[in-house]
Amino acid sequence: MATAREIRLKSRPVGLPTADNFEMATVDLPDPGPGEVQVRNLWMTVDPYMRGRMNDVKSYSPPFQLGKALDGGAVGEVTASNDPKFKAGDLVQSGLGWREGFTAPASSLQKLDTRGLPPQAFLGAAGMPGLTAYAGLLRIAALKDGDVVFVSGAAGAVGSMVCQIAKAKGHTVVGSAGGAEKVAFLKEIGVDHVIDYKAEKDLTAALLAAAPDGVDVYFDNVGGPHLEAALNGARLFARFAICGMISIYNATEPQPGPRNLALLIGKNIRMEGFIVSHHFDLMPQYIADLSKWVAEGKVTWKETVFEGLEKAPDAFMGLFKGENLGKMLVKLA
Amino acid sequence: MATAREIRLKSRPVGLPTADNFEMATVDLPDPGPGEVQVRNLWMTVDPYMRGRMNDVKSYSPPFQLGKALDGGAVGEVTASNDPKFKAGDLVQSGLGWREGFTAPASSLQKLDTRGLPPQAFLGAAGMPGLTAYAGLLRIAALKDGDVVFVSGAAGAVGSMVCQIAKAKGHTVVGSAGGAEKVAFLKEIGVDHVIDYKAEKDLTAALLAAAPDGVDVYFDNVGGPHLEAALNGARLFARFAICGMISIYNATEPQPGPRNLALLIGKNIRMEGFIVSHHFDLMPQYIADLSKWVAEGKVTWKETVFEGLEKAPDAFMGLFKGENLGKMLVKLA
Repeated sequence: MATAREIRLKSRPVGLPTADNFEMATVDLPDPGPGEVQVRNLWMTVDPYMRGRMNDVKSYSPPFQLGKALDGGAVGEVTASNDPKFKAGDLVQSGLGWREGFTAPASSLQKLDTRGLPPQAFLGAAGMPGLTAYAGLLRIAALKDGDVVFVSGAAGAVGSMVCQIAKAKGHTVVGSAGGAEKVAFLKEIGVDHVIDYKAEKDLTAALLAAAPDGVDVYFDNVGGPHLEAALNGARLFARFAICGMISIYNATEPQPGPRNLALLIGKNIRMEGFIVSHHFDLMPQYIADLSKWVAEGKVTWKETVFEGLEKAPDAFMGLFKGENLGKMLVKLA
Repeated sequence: MATAREIRLKSRPVGLPTADNFEMATVDLPDPGPGEVQVRNLWMTVDPYMRGRMNDVKSYSPPFQLGKALDGGAVGEVTASNDPKFKAGDLVQSGLGWREGFTAPASSLQKLDTRGLPPQAFLGAAGMPGLTAYAGLLRIAALKDGDVVFVSGAAGAVGSMVCQIAKAKGHTVVGSAGGAEKVAFLKEIGVDHVIDYKAEKDLTAALLAAAPDGVDVYFDNVGGPHLEAALNGARLFARFAICGMISIYNATEPQPGPRNLALLIGKNIRMEGFIVSHHFDLMPQYIADLSKWVAEGKVTWKETVFEGLEKAPDAFMGLFKGENLGKMLVKLA
């Protein structure tokens, strides 16, 4: 029997999470019983949506429990198997992140066919963030030829894929992100007009300077003033894919929505929220497209890596300070 | 040569319009020249969207000009014609309301085939408000079997048609309106659950009491707290047709949007604004359906009638005080 460290939710954050909200514990990993597998995690992901699960409210994912290990996407290696479908050395994906290892039923694992990509890509560009970008653009926003695309949180795990998918499909892309390093990254991946929102007093003016005829598609990762600017800058029949509102995830009081929401009417704007889990059917098509785009050099990605389970809370908190360029990951082994 | 009175915009309202914003004038009506027709208006409509045109801002309709006659839908009778397509006595529709009569090119008129309906119905149930209800429910909200429908401003010209169309198609309908008379009207036309919003402290609680499993379709005529309640009460994959936001039309400062807009994401809600002019193609299908529903006794309507052009400003201002039950009209002759 081995042991593994795990990160637990010690207390529910009020506003921005702090180190005090987390605690580390060491638990025994029992040898796998019949139908069970033991896994050593190599990588885990931290994502903004996890903030919502730290509140004790029903949402699309169940809330994390106090005193229990957190969870989320992870990639690991089988160390012992008592199930015929897995053998030691297999790479696997699971929803059992925030821990160095675990023993669990084989049914909770998926074998990973990396197709030449690094395994942690399946937590980012080739995983849920990438599929989120793909489904949001193609299915929710119904991207069509000639659309001008505006993306907020453009240098993040989802946003940077939105930008590149839209560019790969031949669109003009306006991306907004904060700070010189992110601006440089967005230019590097071919974004046509980059807005450094931290340097702009008037986001609407910045958007209209970048897209004088307005935008047809807005991919929203942040909410708040970006959403207001997108409404102001939208063209007739614009489509908004509402993916995240990181600007309000840590708010302790309800935040007012956009003051210009009535623009929906005259501009006939369609605004649609979505979560990726309703779009898993697109995964095979996405991976096929992604492989092609990667081979053609049209899509690339960045990772911001924290090393060691003890750094996972810092990685998570860093999401809300804009510390990540591309996918925020924790390397566990 | 005859004369006619007309109502002009004397000053732009700040907040709620007042009598001071309007003035009456008498103008000469020249005899119709070649291709022209002279019309005596019988009925004119006042509608909430006209408030937006009283501001000096570009919107989907051009702003009204100071010192010039207002305009809008009207039904009249040809008094003299110098065009082969019209003859004295013909009933016609035009966009030249807010005046007792006019001389205008024949191309600005449509001959009215009343199909047995009273002529003023073509300014309401059989006109743009009715088509707005039809297009919003069927095309924008993509109404489908089993949907529970929530309607705000349910006793108004558009709202009362939304309720009845949804009922005619077999849906459960929750309607919100203010005051006992409107509540009684909504019960009379078969609305399943009526919310008197003026008597409710908590609209979300009232909505969930009426529709414990939530709503699939929300037809928004008012914005504000009703929209927040609809977001709270929406089911997964709900569709919102955003038709009007009368709650904010008179605001002198931008009003905050719904504080719970992030619910769009987890509930995968689609929210789509629209104006009826993009849906005129549905008119023949609508009139066919409407005739059938009227014959079957499934659809009826109310009118609130002010008499005389001099009452038109009162009728218009009454829209924002909830004085109308069904379509607000001014009878001119």
